[in-house]
Amino acid sequence: MTPLEGLDYAGVAVFAATGALAASRKQLDVIGFGFLAAVTGIGGGTFRDLILGDTPVFWVGKPAYLLVCVAVAAIVYFTAHLVESRYRLLIWLDAVGLSAFAVMGAAKGMALTGSPIVAIVTGMMTATFGGILRDLLSGEPSVLMRPEIYVSAALAGAAVFVAASIFGAPVLVGSALGVISAFAIRGGAIRYGWAFSPYKPRPGRPPEDVM
Amino acid sequence: MTPLEGLDYAGVAVFAATGALAASRKQLDVIGFGFLAAVTGIGGGTFRDLILGDTPVFWVGKPAYLLVCVAVAAIVYFTAHLVESRYRLLIWLDAVGLSAFAVMGAAKGMALTGSPIVAIVTGMMTATFGGILRDLLSGEPSVLMRPEIYVSAALAGAAVFVAASIFGAPVLVGSALGVISAFAIRGGAIRYGWAFSPYKPRPGRPPEDVM
Amino acid sequence: MTPLEGLDYAGVAVFAATGALAASRKQLDVIGFGFLAAVTGIGGGTFRDLILGDTPVFWVGKPAYLLVCVAVAAIVYFTAHLVESRYRLLIWLDAVGLSAFAVMGAAKGMALTGSPIVAIVTGMMTATFGGILRDLLSGEPSVLMRPEIYVSAALAGAAVFVAASIFGAPVLVGSALGVISAFAIRGGAIRYGWAFSPYKPRPGRPPEDVM
Repeated sequence: MTPLEGLDYAGVAVFAATGALAASRKQLDVIGFGFLAAVTGIGGGTFRDLILGDTPVFWVGKPAYLLVCVAVAAIVYFTAHLVESRYRLLIWLDAVGLSAFAVMGAAKGMALTGSPIVAIVTGMMTATFGGILRDLLSGEPSVLMRPEIYVSAALAGAAVFVAASIFGAPVLVGSALGVISAFAIRGGAIRYGWAFSPYKPRPGRPPEDVM
Repeated sequence: MTPLEGLDYAGVAVFAATGALAASRKQLDVIGFGFLAAVTGIGGGTFRDLILGDTPVFWVGKPAYLLVCVAVAAIVYFTAHLVESRYRLLIWLDAVGLSAFAVMGAAKGMALTGSPIVAIVTGMMTATFGGILRDLLSGEPSVLMRPEIYVSAALAGAAVFVAASIFGAPVLVGSALGVISAFAIRGGAIRYGWAFSPYKPRPGRPPEDVM
Repeated sequence: MTPLEGLDYAGVAVFAATGALAASRKQLDVIGFGFLAAVTGIGGGTFRDLILGDTPVFWVGKPAYLLVCVAVAAIVYFTAHLVESRYRLLIWLDAVGLSAFAVMGAAKGMALTGSPIVAIVTGMMTATFGGILRDLLSGEPSVLMRPEIYVSAALAGAAVFVAASIFGAPVLVGSALGVISAFAIRGGAIRYGWAFSPYKPRPGRPPEDVM
């Protein structure tokens, strides 16, 4: 298994765990755990492969990815009650997955297109899309709409990896730098509430009164 | 028309009807009926084809699928007021569509990849994705989040079809067994509230208070 | 740049602006502006390309599309407070984007499949999908569910373009007619509340009480 493959399985496993934790928060049954785990675990990479035209998507040829999601869902099903705050755990695991997928998505985008801009975008998309799907399907407020830094951490991790490849760094070094950058930024945002200043003037009025 | 093609058109038609019923519940106009009918009717199969890399997707080459959706939407537009409980009808038609698409999705996944695990997953996805889209777009609570068995019925139908193919059963027999299995399980869940025990400990707290 | 390319960039730019305006209504940070602008600006065309099997999707080979989204997001970030009603501006820009993408989506569908029905559908999808994504991600009520004419304007614009091509009109003329038709219908719907009569009998009851 190459470093990037290891990163990919790690990302799938932790995102699957966040999906299963969302299922536990919604008190779904065990199949609901597996479904949300799989959608969250493989959603970002599936979207990345569709965009890049690399179909059938990655897990069709390697069902081990699906089995990882199912196994993680089962583990969470039997252990989630031991966790004091499942949402806090979900958010931290999401940060690990975001960091792994930002690099993995950028690496695949770079390999298939050679374009740094596209690679940064596929990194960002791969990292954020699984969590967006999870929140949409489970009816949680989207992590995208929270004030702390989220998308930017994925952008930064992808950009660091792409810069490292351009400067000729070995894949292992570039991957490590990318993952660490993304996780440091997202972790700081979770722990210390790091945020860009939000847009201030005023929130939007409801749509009804404006035609 | 082969048995699988018949199943496919039947699935599209009944899912289209559920989309049109959702439109009637939201009091949309006739174009809204057509739009939700088409998204629900062809959404699951579109997603299946994208994942499997079988593009252009199925309805691009056979616009008859779109015409079926439009015709069904028109029929529902003029007859839905005759139905006592449109949601009840929606749920039962959804069960028929789920059963047809679980088999159809598994058959296509098996034909294109030869992998039983992938076939079961594409069956489950094809069966559930149209309804998920319908609920997301029409703002209804997702059928996924309901306590009774749903995804599992699709899983079971797909697995029965795949097992039948592996044991060499004719397509017609395997399809019939798969459809019947899925419908029996989902129908029982609707009628008698069959459910796996949900995850118990406690529902999640709102995200705000946990950082 | 051909007329259709110009139309495509114009559509991306105005849809990106609607995404950024949605971000301003939700008081996101500057990266949130960029993200919603990009999703809204390139979402419809991405979906169109996936359906038609024209992958990698359009912006992978031409990152200028992404740069347009980022630039538009930055402009909106610094100027949105000058606008009296951001939702009103969003709705009108959405009408411009809808008109441009209805024609552009129909043109691409026609070019790749030769089928008028498919071209009308890809036109409608390209025109509406970006706005649907924007509303889903930003948690606004979907523009699809509003009473005034929306999808029909896109349908009409796509149909006029397709009819013009069939009758041999030059691309520039067909595009202009299509854009004007769509915008006139959608503009009238916004300004005067044009609507088909909605489905009347009664709104749906909540799902809970009907099993």
